Amino acid sequence: MLTFASDYTTGCCPEILDRLVATNLEPQSGYGSDEYCKSAAEKIKLACNAPKAQVEFITGGTQTNQAVIASMLRRYEGVIAARTGHISCHEAGAIEYTGHKVFELPQVQGKINAKDIAALVDRFYNDASHEHMVYPGMVYISHPTEYGTLYTLSELTAISETCRSRNIPLFLDGARLGYGLMSYQTDVTLQDITRLCDVFYIGGTKVGALCGEAVVFTHGNRPEHFLTMKKQNGALLAKGRLLGVQFDTLFTDDLYFRIAKHAIDMAERLKGILSDAGFPFLIESPTNQQFVIIDNATIERLRKNVGFEFWETVDEDHTAVRFATSWSTTEKELDKLESLLK
Amino acid sequence: MLTFASDYTTGCCPEILDRLVATNLEPQSGYGSDEYCKSAAEKIKLACNAPKAQVEFITGGTQTNQAVIASMLRRYEGVIAARTGHISCHEAGAIEYTGHKVFELPQVQGKINAKDIAALVDRFYNDASHEHMVYPGMVYISHPTEYGTLYTLSELTAISETCRSRNIPLFLDGARLGYGLMSYQTDVTLQDITRLCDVFYIGGTKVGALCGEAVVFTHGNRPEHFLTMKKQNGALLAKGRLLGVQFDTLFTDDLYFRIAKHAIDMAERLKGILSDAGFPFLIESPTNQQFVIIDNATIERLRKNVGFEFWETVDEDHTAVRFATSWSTTEKELDKLESLLK
Amino acid sequence: MLTFASDYTTGCCPEILDRLVATNLEPQSGYGSDEYCKSAAEKIKLACNAPKAQVEFITGGTQTNQAVIASMLRRYEGVIAARTGHISCHEAGAIEYTGHKVFELPQVQGKINAKDIAALVDRFYNDASHEHMVYPGMVYISHPTEYGTLYTLSELTAISETCRSRNIPLFLDGARLGYGLMSYQTDVTLQDITRLCDVFYIGGTKVGALCGEAVVFTHGNRPEHFLTMKKQNGALLAKGRLLGVQFDTLFTDDLYFRIAKHAIDMAERLKGILSDAGFPFLIESPTNQQFVIIDNATIERLRKNVGFEFWETVDEDHTAVRFATSWSTTEKELDKLESLLK
Amino acid sequence: MLTFASDYTTGCCPEILDRLVATNLEPQSGYGSDEYCKSAAEKIKLACNAPKAQVEFITGGTQTNQAVIASMLRRYEGVIAARTGHISCHEAGAIEYTGHKVFELPQVQGKINAKDIAALVDRFYNDASHEHMVYPGMVYISHPTEYGTLYTLSELTAISETCRSRNIPLFLDGARLGYGLMSYQTDVTLQDITRLCDVFYIGGTKVGALCGEAVVFTHGNRPEHFLTMKKQNGALLAKGRLLGVQFDTLFTDDLYFRIAKHAIDMAERLKGILSDAGFPFLIESPTNQQFVIIDNATIERLRKNVGFEFWETVDEDHTAVRFATSWSTTEKELDKLESLLK
Repeated sequence: MLTFASDYTTGCCPEILDRLVATNLEPQSGYGSDEYCKSAAEKIKLACNAPKAQVEFITGGTQTNQAVIASMLRRYEGVIAARTGHISCHEAGAIEYTGHKVFELPQVQGKINAKDIAALVDRFYNDASHEHMVYPGMVYISHPTEYGTLYTLSELTAISETCRSRNIPLFLDGARLGYGLMSYQTDVTLQDITRLCDVFYIGGTKVGALCGEAVVFTHGNRPEHFLTMKKQNGALLAKGRLLGVQFDTLFTDDLYFRIAKHAIDMAERLKGILSDAGFPFLIESPTNQQFVIIDNATIERLRKNVGFEFWETVDEDHTAVRFATSWSTTEKELDKLESLLK
Repeated sequence: MLTFASDYTTGCCPEILDRLVATNLEPQSGYGSDEYCKSAAEKIKLACNAPKAQVEFITGGTQTNQAVIASMLRRYEGVIAARTGHISCHEAGAIEYTGHKVFELPQVQGKINAKDIAALVDRFYNDASHEHMVYPGMVYISHPTEYGTLYTLSELTAISETCRSRNIPLFLDGARLGYGLMSYQTDVTLQDITRLCDVFYIGGTKVGALCGEAVVFTHGNRPEHFLTMKKQNGALLAKGRLLGVQFDTLFTDDLYFRIAKHAIDMAERLKGILSDAGFPFLIESPTNQQFVIIDNATIERLRKNVGFEFWETVDEDHTAVRFATSWSTTEKELDKLESLLK
Repeated sequence: MLTFASDYTTGCCPEILDRLVATNLEPQSGYGSDEYCKSAAEKIKLACNAPKAQVEFITGGTQTNQAVIASMLRRYEGVIAARTGHISCHEAGAIEYTGHKVFELPQVQGKINAKDIAALVDRFYNDASHEHMVYPGMVYISHPTEYGTLYTLSELTAISETCRSRNIPLFLDGARLGYGLMSYQTDVTLQDITRLCDVFYIGGTKVGALCGEAVVFTHGNRPEHFLTMKKQNGALLAKGRLLGVQFDTLFTDDLYFRIAKHAIDMAERLKGILSDAGFPFLIESPTNQQFVIIDNATIERLRKNVGFEFWETVDEDHTAVRFATSWSTTEKELDKLESLLK
Repeated sequence: MLTFASDYTTGCCPEILDRLVATNLEPQSGYGSDEYCKSAAEKIKLACNAPKAQVEFITGGTQTNQAVIASMLRRYEGVIAARTGHISCHEAGAIEYTGHKVFELPQVQGKINAKDIAALVDRFYNDASHEHMVYPGMVYISHPTEYGTLYTLSELTAISETCRSRNIPLFLDGARLGYGLMSYQTDVTLQDITRLCDVFYIGGTKVGALCGEAVVFTHGNRPEHFLTMKKQNGALLAKGRLLGVQFDTLFTDDLYFRIAKHAIDMAERLKGILSDAGFPFLIESPTNQQFVIIDNATIERLRKNVGFEFWETVDEDHTAVRFATSWSTTEKELDKLESLLK
């Protein structure tokens, strides 16, 4: 059976498994103090062109968002996000669980903008009774967003400037960062993100790893005692090498970028196939997730041979669904899909 | 100096002070187990026509919202409220501090409606990935709302039915309940509220008491070990008699309703005075808070002699301000205001 | 019926009620910004001889402990207390509810000592894996303790020096501070406490007020945005005047000290009466709480006419009970007790 | 360099890597709904002889303790543990972070006993003011303990009976469960644990896996909406297959037990080597961790060639250290150690 259900349906890229096998018997110290975490961190700093950055590895996305946000916010602060942001609606309230409000901003195709952020923050400080309110203490954006869309360099710069002028850190959730960076339609580089954000993460789980996200505190701004807070969040892995080896491999010979590029190439072909089949797109996504509207009869027929994900009901007869590519998507799979749609 | 700044600028109605004096030397047991708490609870149950109700006294409004919501929600649940609800924006994140999300619904003049509540809950349960989301576990409304407006019996009934059909408790914040019940323009009674809500509170602080709110669990549904959870929230008063005596007094000879009625009478005259002065109303409020738009020059002049509260900026030259009446507002004060506005 | 059950069975000292009556109609701004809070704070700073101190008023004891501890600790820190400390065992986990561990030290008659504190802190920093542990971030002591005992100046000085040399703030819970200061057997003054502690509170609820505790941050060390955090804990009172007026009265003409002195005088006579009746003391308490061991038959007989509190079971036939005096205890009540015990 | 520093210094047993490689390209659904999690769960239920059990996979130990405890306790409850328990002192306050108190009991060689548990619970319910205290809501034990010791069947039965008679669930932390089950000196089986505990976990991270712990709710008592709460704790892994494949492998052909048995065999030989070298044992440990007291000069010399872990300072000249064996410990390594100690 074909599957385009998500970018985490298969395991990891083989280079990672090879490396896990090769390093398996080496004794390494625990909790992220191993050689591979160190080496991976250096490679990431180099890729980011950020010698002062600090890199931390965490197992999963929600965990990363929780650990980063809860360690950077003061207890009277909340985090600003898109109403459709992952932390706003698909993390079971993990942020609120740590005591912090998520301020939800309106979004367009998953993106928020500098103007709305500025308005929220300025309205807060202009409110005579703002001491009775939650302080805006961080801005959270996803890139790519939950809809596969991307911020332009100009949009990201405006958000960054808005945050810096108001002294509020900017956090970019890069669960699918590779696909954003390798998109045919982006003008944003990893160095841009490092320069414009205060903290972001490079997603591994959805970009070819078994698990793992690499958090980058871009300018030596990692909160003091972050390791302890990570542990307090249940997010400190004993065999940290599992994350270290994976990211060290991903950042050797540009593997991370190459597999992301492959997924994008596959996505572009996928887009053509879906378009040729006459399906309108729900969103114009420049990354590895494609959202198309299909009539329910066709959906039912396709389901027998192809995996894809329900996204939302459009009308009585039509449904929006998601197709995703990944490191493991092959031309052959696309050929099959194409023939099924003919 | 005249003041209409809020309904908590003066102390409490004299009957309460008299009673505190009269009972001061009686030994009473602590933590709400005193005779006055018991007697007040019985009187409130009678006024509500709810023999199975359970009544609890808590010192302040935010504390009440926090203690009630955090003890009724399961840890994976959140509470639905208006975007302008007190818990959404003016309680410093006290609900999130206890680990729970506040779902914010659009509002009209401070009110939410049954349809939007139903849509949110139904969308949640229809979402294939709702296990990754916060469960809607309670609906919170204020009556009067933060804008002084009131739900009609028909609106409240619809909200109640929506909640009950979805098995979600309805909580009504009655910080200013007295003013709502005594409004010239309401068809909602205390008995209606008791019947339609699962829990609500009768505000004391803003309706003539020094402090204190009476929480009514309307049908024997007080969470088990509520006293312990109240203590855990820091909300258990040692000399519970302070709350008991106040509410026992307020619910003797309809004092609560009489002072609220007086404030409403004063508000109606105030409305006339403000209207005669040519100020447009920001909102048509049927309760003790009146919101008018005044030009900034007049505001500056008035400020010298009258206290009122900034509400929001309307345009460069105009500001919306709030005037509130209370148990202590006098005809004489209104006469003075009237003459100042001539 | 006589009662010595606790120091919060009666209302408040009449001077406070008089003052509440006298100021009742004055308009005052809310949330602690009223004139009386300001004036009370100044008087307390004067009594403490601490011009740089900051004074905050909070309604009750558990609430104060929660608001102070949770606002001063960083999220990875815990608070050190006696195993019998109020926060350790009688506050329903209010500290843990805010996310912080209470480190429990062994105690003697309710007191901990500098040596044990130093040992705990030093062991922590000497532990190679201390980053996996909770950081000791505050020391909490009660004075008088939960057993009515007092720290000597020398003990308190040692604790203070231990804390300061390790850069850990010292917090003194003074729920019954007045009785400690007025004890016949203390060498500790309010100025000593101010000098030696980083934060402490002057208990009102148990020393003649209806409610209220005055927190003193002794050297300008009030956490930034304390008001917001107080609100977040549900501990910000709308009619702050209720606390302001009470403390302003208590710190006018030494009322606080006079009523505490009266309770101590009564306690000393009580001690004589209990001793003359042949009851051994469980603890040698120099303050207003007296703990005696009485045979169960006598307890049963006394119960008909006198209120006192069960403390702990001593053996099959004997029970330790608590008698407490307060501002309202009279010579006549002691006469009656004496005659009942003859 | 030799290392006996811990049981998580090497990667995972090769069978797991083989299986990860073999299954890598199979599409599997996410979040624990994959075939391997299902199959592993069935195998574990069979090994436990518990058809009604429910099995959940979580990435690490602290995370597991946090997710299990915080989802099973009501908000006013705490968990009872040994003062030396992992949750008491080496998890950075992860339990308190979720709002719950850890009651610390005295321990002997890491173990608590039924009598002390009963005393704590009974004292609580006999306390007249227990509503002001944290309710004991769970008992937590480790087996092996943090000192490598084991409960006997009789001790475990007594604890279980104490818990059941008081209606308090018993949770067993089996981070190193394999070593406990394969010890030469145990009379406790996996089936005993399943029968006597309400929930426990089978440690993977420290027993041959890359990461992962298998939680067993022994009698269909998994909390409702556990998946959502897991997500809320940041503990839901997207590629759940990583855990499923590992546990499926470990519970195929008794691999889990075989590798644990190997580590125990190696530990027994290690014990002989250390004993022959004349080092006294700090604790008589029947599992894979051995604690010996060595003079500091020898420690310094050994450090050059052997990894082991500092445990505690014994006196000026002696230190207790830990040596651990694991699935990857070889006879050859022990030969080398032996020759170094001659």
